[in-house]
This record gives sequence, structure tokens and C-alpha cells, in this order.
Amino acid sequence: MNFKVRESIREDMPQVLELIKELAIFENEPDAVEVTVENLLEEGFSEPPLFKCFVAENDDLILGIALVYFRFSTWKGRSLHLEDLIVRAELRGSGIGKALYTRMIEYAESLGVKRIEWAVLDWNKGAIKFYEKSGAIVFDEWRIAQMDEVGINNYLKNK
Amino acid sequence: MNFKVRESIREDMPQVLELIKELAIFENEPDAVEVTVENLLEEGFSEPPLFKCFVAENDDLILGIALVYFRFSTWKGRSLHLEDLIVRAELRGSGIGKALYTRMIEYAESLGVKRIEWAVLDWNKGAIKFYEKSGAIVFDEWRIAQMDEVGINNYLKNK
Repeated sequence: MNFKVRESIREDMPQVLELIKELAIFENEPDAVEVTVENLLEEGFSEPPLFKCFVAENDDLILGIALVYFRFSTWKGRSLHLEDLIVRAELRGSGIGKALYTRMIEYAESLGVKRIEWAVLDWNKGAIKFYEKSGAIVFDEWRIAQMDEVGINNYLKNK
Repeated sequence: MNFKVRESIREDMPQVLELIKELAIFENEPDAVEVTVENLLEEGFSEPPLFKCFVAENDDLILGIALVYFRFSTWKGRSLHLEDLIVRAELRGSGIGKALYTRMIEYAESLGVKRIEWAVLDWNKGAIKFYEKSGAIVFDEWRIAQMDEVGINNYLKNK
């Protein structure tokens, strides 16, 4: 498979959103994506940008993306969060994910961050195996908690 | 218990670090904290700051903290991450954690973020009960993955 990995530009965002929606379907949450191309442009290309996105491209077609942003670990300091690593479904297994993952780790190293963190679904055994083989640790005892807008409003009404 | 909740200032950071270390002990990771007061000052009081910290205070003594920063959800957009909610061990159950949690949620609402996210240890049943009662969802199927500096360097050596 012929492709190159580069930083995303504004013109990539419609295809980036396509891939985000494709991942939501894979994760059994087809209606979860509320983000728009405008949001991606606003948050990813402001000064400073809230996120950075790498894309794998072949002839103007985006084949995969890795989207990252900074976090702050109170144990380790500035860290990088990998929000999404997505490869078009029909192209999985062709080295695109590995190339994006490597580029993201090179980026982390260049910034001197102490840690990269991300989330993975426990039934996505292929991904977990890939991550563990790469030297990542997948933790069993941490749970992710979320409060959405409805939860926020309800909480504040009843506090 | 008499206390007030306010945004942290630079002079709070030595006590904030004390509380961070106290939480690491509670989470069975007493040696995990590499962050220094200098890191906290550098990352929390730069322009723009990487994180924001609220403190509960009584007479110059910091009793608890809530430390947050922005993330970018590719499903929901800009979101807030609660990295740490810590109350001095001897003061737990006195309403300080609830007050900090409420202040953090008010802050999220004032920013119009779509979601607040955080992590909790699965054996910390008291915390999970508190979060669920407040309207948060604690997910079973997501796992947290991390690659630390050693992992990053090893990966890049062997890629």
C-alpha cells in the first residue's frame, strides 16, 4: 500500500470527520458523533490549537488518522493523549495504523512528554494485542467516568 | 467544617503537590509522583495554562483540590477532564469533595463544554457510588492504555 503520513491541513477535515464517524459505527455508537467540520476547524486550527491530527494519504484520499492533544498528569507532567487512531475499514492490516502510531510516538518523543495515554474497548482484542506488543500497558483497574451536558444540567439543578 | 473554594494561585502549589502525593499513596503508587512545584507553576500559570486548579481553603491551609484541563472529544467536541479530586485524608466526608466537585461542574457549565471525563479505580467503591449518584456514568468496557518514556524510547529503537 502506497501512502504518506503528514500533519493534517484544514482541507482534510471533511475526510477526517468521515473517519471519525466510521469509528463510531465500529464502536457500536453510530449516533454519538455531534462534532462538525466547523468544530474541527475551530479547535484544531486556532492559536494555540486544542488538538493535532496526522493523516495517512494516498492521492488526496485520507486513509487513516491519528488525533492527539496535550494532557497534564499530576504524576508525570505534560503528556500526550491519543484520542483516535483510525484506519478505513477496508484498509486495516496494511500497515497504515502502524505508520500513524509510529509517527504519533515520534511526535511525543520530540516534545519530551513523559507519557502517552489512550483508551481502548476491552472487546477490541486485536487493538489490545497490538498496543501491548508495542510496549504499552493496558490497565485493568481504572474505569472511565463521564458526565454529559444533560448530567451537568441535572446536577446543577439539584445540587 | 469552615472552608471556601477558590481558584488556585501560584503560592498554593507546594500544598497542591502535597495533596497529589497523598493521593498517590492512597492509590498504592507512593513513588509515582515525578511532578515538582516548578512543573506545576510552569504548566498551570503559563499563557495559556495547561490546567486549572480549584482549592478548598481554611486559613491558608489547602484542604482539597480539583484539577482540570481541556480535552477534545472527536464525538462531542471540547470537553473538560477532571484529573484529580483530592481531599486531605483526615477530612474526607466533611463536604469538601462535594463542594470542589460542584465548583468544577459549574466551571464546565460556564464554558459550555459537552462532557466532563475522569478516571476512577474500580476498587474505590465509595468514589464510584458518589459519582454515579451525581449522574455520572462509570463505563465497564473501556480500558486505559499508557506508554511511558521508557516504552516510547524502546518502541522507537525497535520500530
